[in-house]
Amino acid sequence: MSTRNLLVVLSESEKQDFLPLPLWERLCGLAPDLTWMTPQEVEERGWESVFSSIKPKILVTGWRTPPLPDDGIFARESGLEYLCHLPGSVRKLIPEVWIANGLVVSNWGNSISHVVAECGLMLITSGLRRAGYWNNAMHHSDAWKGPDLDTCSLFGRRVGIHGLGAIARSLVRLLEPFGLEISVYSPSVPQEVLDEYRVKRCDSLEELFSKNNVIVELAPLTPKNTGIVTEELLRMIPDDGLFVNIGRGAVVDEDALARVCAEGRLHAALDVYTIEPLPADSPLRQLDNVTLLPHLGGPTVDQRQTAGAYGLDNIERYLRGEEPESVVTLSTYARAT
Amino acid sequence: MSTRNLLVVLSESEKQDFLPLPLWERLCGLAPDLTWMTPQEVEERGWESVFSSIKPKILVTGWRTPPLPDDGIFARESGLEYLCHLPGSVRKLIPEVWIANGLVVSNWGNSISHVVAECGLMLITSGLRRAGYWNNAMHHSDAWKGPDLDTCSLFGRRVGIHGLGAIARSLVRLLEPFGLEISVYSPSVPQEVLDEYRVKRCDSLEELFSKNNVIVELAPLTPKNTGIVTEELLRMIPDDGLFVNIGRGAVVDEDALARVCAEGRLHAALDVYTIEPLPADSPLRQLDNVTLLPHLGGPTVDQRQTAGAYGLDNIERYLRGEEPESVVTLSTYARAT
Repeated sequence: MSTRNLLVVLSESEKQDFLPLPLWERLCGLAPDLTWMTPQEVEERGWESVFSSIKPKILVTGWRTPPLPDDGIFARESGLEYLCHLPGSVRKLIPEVWIANGLVVSNWGNSISHVVAECGLMLITSGLRRAGYWNNAMHHSDAWKGPDLDTCSLFGRRVGIHGLGAIARSLVRLLEPFGLEISVYSPSVPQEVLDEYRVKRCDSLEELFSKNNVIVELAPLTPKNTGIVTEELLRMIPDDGLFVNIGRGAVVDEDALARVCAEGRLHAALDVYTIEPLPADSPLRQLDNVTLLPHLGGPTVDQRQTAGAYGLDNIERYLRGEEPESVVTLSTYARAT
Repeated sequence: MSTRNLLVVLSESEKQDFLPLPLWERLCGLAPDLTWMTPQEVEERGWESVFSSIKPKILVTGWRTPPLPDDGIFARESGLEYLCHLPGSVRKLIPEVWIANGLVVSNWGNSISHVVAECGLMLITSGLRRAGYWNNAMHHSDAWKGPDLDTCSLFGRRVGIHGLGAIARSLVRLLEPFGLEISVYSPSVPQEVLDEYRVKRCDSLEELFSKNNVIVELAPLTPKNTGIVTEELLRMIPDDGLFVNIGRGAVVDEDALARVCAEGRLHAALDVYTIEPLPADSPLRQLDNVTLLPHLGGPTVDQRQTAGAYGLDNIERYLRGEEPESVVTLSTYARAT
C-alpha cells in the first residue's frame, strides 16, 4: 500500500463533517502513509509542488479543494490515478482534460438522495400549509391567523414528479404513508420501475402539470431540459397548486415562475435557482407565497458522513482493483452543473 | 324524520368548507326539513327566539356559532337532544349546564388527527433543516448560505414523543419510511399498543428528554400536565436538539422554553402557545431558531370536509338510535381547552 500514495485535501471542518474520527481511522487503516493537507496549504504551495513532493496516486477532495491545473501535460504526467471527490459536482474542481487523460473520478452519487428527498417532503408540506408565510409574519409583526386561511394538507393531493431518478424514488418512498396518487413524467424510465414504485406514467409534461396539485421538479439539467418548464406549463397547474423545485433551477423559466406566483394562483417552494446565489434583486425574494431555501437540499451537516463513508467504500473498491461506483465519465461531466 | 327538527348554524364559508355540496346534499337527505341559519342571523334574533320558532332537536355548529345561553332552565326546556359540533373544542360554545342536563354533544374527535400529524412531520423536518430561518432571511435580505451551516436531517435522529394518542399514532405512521428509533412517554398506554407501533417506552420524561434529539409534545392538557415540561427537562435535550409542540401550549413552561432557545443550544418549532393568539411581545417572536405557526395544526381548509363527513356519520348514528362517536362527557369537558 505504501506505493499507492494517498493525499487528502480537505479543510478542517470538511474533514470533521465528511470523515469524523471512526471514518478517518478507517481511511488511515487503508492507507497508513496518507498525507492530509488543507486547501490553504495547497494554495500556498501550488499543485505542481504538492504533486512533485507527494506523488499522489489517489486524491480525496471536498468543496474547498483548489481546482486542478487545466493543463494536459500536467494531467498526463501527474501520476494521479483516482480522484475520490466526497461531494457531488466536480466541474469547478477538475478540468475535463484530466478525465480525458484517463483519471478515474467518482463523487457521492446517490448516497445522499434520501436527504434531498426529505427536503422535498418538507417543502411540499410546508408550502401547502403556508408555513413560510406564517413563520415570517409571526416573527415580523403580531400576526395571528384570521378567518380567511388558505392552508392545505398533503392528504388527498395529486402529486406529479418530473423525473424518476434516485431522489424522486426516495421521495416516493417517503410519501407512501400519505396514500397519494403519484404521477411521473420520465420517458426514459422503463415501465417496470414505475410499477415497482406504484406511480402512474404521464405521457407529456402538459398532462403532468395540468392533472396534479403539487408538481415536484427533479429533471436533470441537460441542454434539452434547460427552460423546459415554461410559463405555459406553469399556468396549467390547477389553481392553488404548488410548484416545488429541488432539482436544478435552470430547468425552469424562473422569470415566468415569479410572474405566475405574483398573481397569487400558484405557490412555490424552491431550493435551487438559475443563478446561485439567488441575486439580491430577484423578484422571488419579494413573494410571500414562495418559500425560499439557499440550496440546502444536499446533505445536511450531520449526513455528510454518509457521503464520506460512501467515498471510503469507493477507495476500498479501487484498492481491490475494482471500479468505484458513481464514476464521472466524459459524458456525465459534460452534462453536469 | 320531519319531527326531528335539525338546525344548522354555520357561516357561509364554514358551510362550504365543512359541508361542500355533496355532503350538504347528504345532510338534506337525512333531514329534508332542516333549517340553515348564519351565526349573524342567530345573533340578531337571539337563541330564545330561534329555539321557540324552530324547536331544534339536533343542532349542527361551527367555530362561529354564537354561544348557547348559560341558563339551566333554558337548557332543560329547550328540547335540544343532540349537538353535533363539526370542529373540536366546545367550551366557548356550550356552557357546562347543557351537558349536565343531558344534551348529547359530539365533536370531530380523531377524524383529523392525520392532518395534525402531518403538521408535526413538517415542523420536525423544517426545524431540523432551519428552513424557517432561511426562508425569512432570504425574503428580508440578500441572504445565501455560508460555510457554517448547521442543517440537520431527520434520518438518523432519535425521536421522542410525549403522549401516544391518535395524533402521535398517526405521526409514527408518517415517520415509518425514515426508519427511526422512536420512544414514547405515555404511562397510561398499554404495552401492546407500543408494540403495535414499534415504539420504545420511556419510563420518565427525564429519560425521554435526555435520550432523544427531537422531542414532540403531544400530551393532553390536564391539570397534572400543565407546565410539566420544565426548564430542567428542556435543558436535558442534547445540544442542537429540536422541541416541537403540536399539542397544547400550556403543557410547557413557555418562558423557560424561550430562555433556553435564546441560548442557541435548542431549536423549537411551535404551533401552540400558553396564550393564543401569541402575544405581540412574546420573546418567541424574536428568536430566529424558533419556527412559529398560528395554531394551524388542525384541519387545513381542504380537510375540513373530512370533519364534516365525520359529523354526518354521527348524525346518522344518532338518527338510527345509536350513540355518536367522540361524545363530550362532563369529565372530558372539564379537561378540554
